[in-house]
Amino acid sequence: MSIHALKRSQCHLAWDNSIPPAIHIQSGDTITFDCLDASNGQITPITIASALSTLDLATLDQVNGPIYVSSALPGDTLQIEVLEVEVAEWGWTGIIPGFGLLADEFTDPALKIWTLNRTSSGAQGEETPTGYGYAWFDEKKGIKIPLKPFAGEMGVAPAEKGAFSTIPPYKTGGNIDTKHLAKGSILYLPIGVEGALFSIGDGHAAQGDGEVCEPTSELMELGTAIETPMKVTVRLTVLKDKSYVETPHFSTPATKDESGGYYCTTGVGPDIREAARDAVRHMITLLGVERGLSRVEAYMLCSVAGDLRMHEVVDMPNYVIGLMLPKSIFGNV
Amino acid sequence: MSIHALKRSQCHLAWDNSIPPAIHIQSGDTITFDCLDASNGQITPITIASALSTLDLATLDQVNGPIYVSSALPGDTLQIEVLEVEVAEWGWTGIIPGFGLLADEFTDPALKIWTLNRTSSGAQGEETPTGYGYAWFDEKKGIKIPLKPFAGEMGVAPAEKGAFSTIPPYKTGGNIDTKHLAKGSILYLPIGVEGALFSIGDGHAAQGDGEVCEPTSELMELGTAIETPMKVTVRLTVLKDKSYVETPHFSTPATKDESGGYYCTTGVGPDIREAARDAVRHMITLLGVERGLSRVEAYMLCSVAGDLRMHEVVDMPNYVIGLMLPKSIFGNV
Repeated sequence: MSIHALKRSQCHLAWDNSIPPAIHIQSGDTITFDCLDASNGQITPITIASALSTLDLATLDQVNGPIYVSSALPGDTLQIEVLEVEVAEWGWTGIIPGFGLLADEFTDPALKIWTLNRTSSGAQGEETPTGYGYAWFDEKKGIKIPLKPFAGEMGVAPAEKGAFSTIPPYKTGGNIDTKHLAKGSILYLPIGVEGALFSIGDGHAAQGDGEVCEPTSELMELGTAIETPMKVTVRLTVLKDKSYVETPHFSTPATKDESGGYYCTTGVGPDIREAARDAVRHMITLLGVERGLSRVEAYMLCSVAGDLRMHEVVDMPNYVIGLMLPKSIFGNV
Repeated sequence: MSIHALKRSQCHLAWDNSIPPAIHIQSGDTITFDCLDASNGQITPITIASALSTLDLATLDQVNGPIYVSSALPGDTLQIEVLEVEVAEWGWTGIIPGFGLLADEFTDPALKIWTLNRTSSGAQGEETPTGYGYAWFDEKKGIKIPLKPFAGEMGVAPAEKGAFSTIPPYKTGGNIDTKHLAKGSILYLPIGVEGALFSIGDGHAAQGDGEVCEPTSELMELGTAIETPMKVTVRLTVLKDKSYVETPHFSTPATKDESGGYYCTTGVGPDIREAARDAVRHMITLLGVERGLSRVEAYMLCSVAGDLRMHEVVDMPNYVIGLMLPKSIFGNV
């Protein structure tokens, strides 16, 4: 099992299976990526709001990669273990006119530069819920956000030829913007091409489910999570026995409330209701294969124990809806 | 502050401001309701699946009430504190042909009768996450569901004349099917008529967010949470200073992971995306009134710290989408 590193400059601007790999690795190897923020370095700690209107949109939302993983074939599953995520000392949140869930009601640009306090205790010395430190939203009012860094983009190249924007999420991943993919989580993606061609980017220091003021346009993405440069380390492993993974699945670590964490299946597409149906369908399939449940049993179990989450609702044209099932219901965690 | 009780028979089958009150109480009084399950007693522990096709649909989804609360006027807010929820020793989950998120794929009726183990420890003696006991889904496979009982229906009479089905949720509440409204939570509803006319019903022993195999038809509701008779105790208080509550809001108690619990605003309506926008709008308004934040600040805060949840996606024609904000970010909980 080797350890590799990718530099900031080793990035690309579309999901495209013709982009040559930045590096070849073995299944089971570990890689550390050094990633700029989603503005590709255009926004810095001294940027002012008015500058948002002159960003070069063509270079946004870069992802670092692609990584060619030997033995990966179409139909296999890529397991991505998130081993470490380290954010910079600063981040930004922006409101871009024309973009976001309430774009029509927020027409002026706004930019907040955050200082990220990456120690594990808050200003008053208390332990943070996430163990990652706080960002002060308003110190005078006492409002602070616990950090929980993750990569908003993780994906593999599609089977289809051509260049696909890095803004929407796809069934092969990409901009899934799922805050649950922090350190300790495991993401599973369906592999579309030989070598998988994995890439990663879009550092977020904290974000709610849904990322509500994220843009809605197909033309650009300017995330309004707390966007930040990051270093992220993942272990990539090719799995040959999970061909039922047709959209992103993930598994989260234990928390105090959920001793086993969650397993999540997703639906990805332009219709929220159909994406929700897909998420449920995929969980029903999984419960059949992995737990031996009938389809009726699995459907009932999803209804009484599953949580439907709107992971991503703004990166048009595709939504990501997740069905999260607490693993503790299976007793053996 | 008086204590009142309502019997099983004191129920009605529509939201209608012309229904005479079952009881008059003072603001601040407490009431215990004895409620049948959502089948209005038609399903019992010995019912078999084939009987689902002969249910009397006209008597389903009764709610107990209405309660006339003195001093309540249109424009006021009704605060409902959930003090206790006690479920029966059994419950049921059904798949009704023609209903549910995957109705087209589950065409045969199915009925599961559950035994509800209401002690606070599981079969192996471990503490349950919710403190409410377990229901065994499959004892041989070791699959068990922690109970977290709540009332699926809580609402007040609409301002509009007429009889409105108890199946969809409305801005005045009703079938909001929100699992977060368990013991210790506080629900806020906008009052539409003098006396508020509060009613409650639809006992659920456990349910994921979304209640995915709940029916999708306007003609009937046969919830496929774990449906159960329940006794539920609430304290009703009229608030004169929360006129910004235009849809259901609620506040949840602390958990191990969220030391302050959550505050949630909702959007209710036939379009999921618009309901999500409404939920965010209502939180922005609340953060302005209660925390003195500007609209831009509030919008950014929702994006970096809020969770968008699909509380209810199957009681057509209306969806309930919630924006949940952890109260701990305000430091003073």
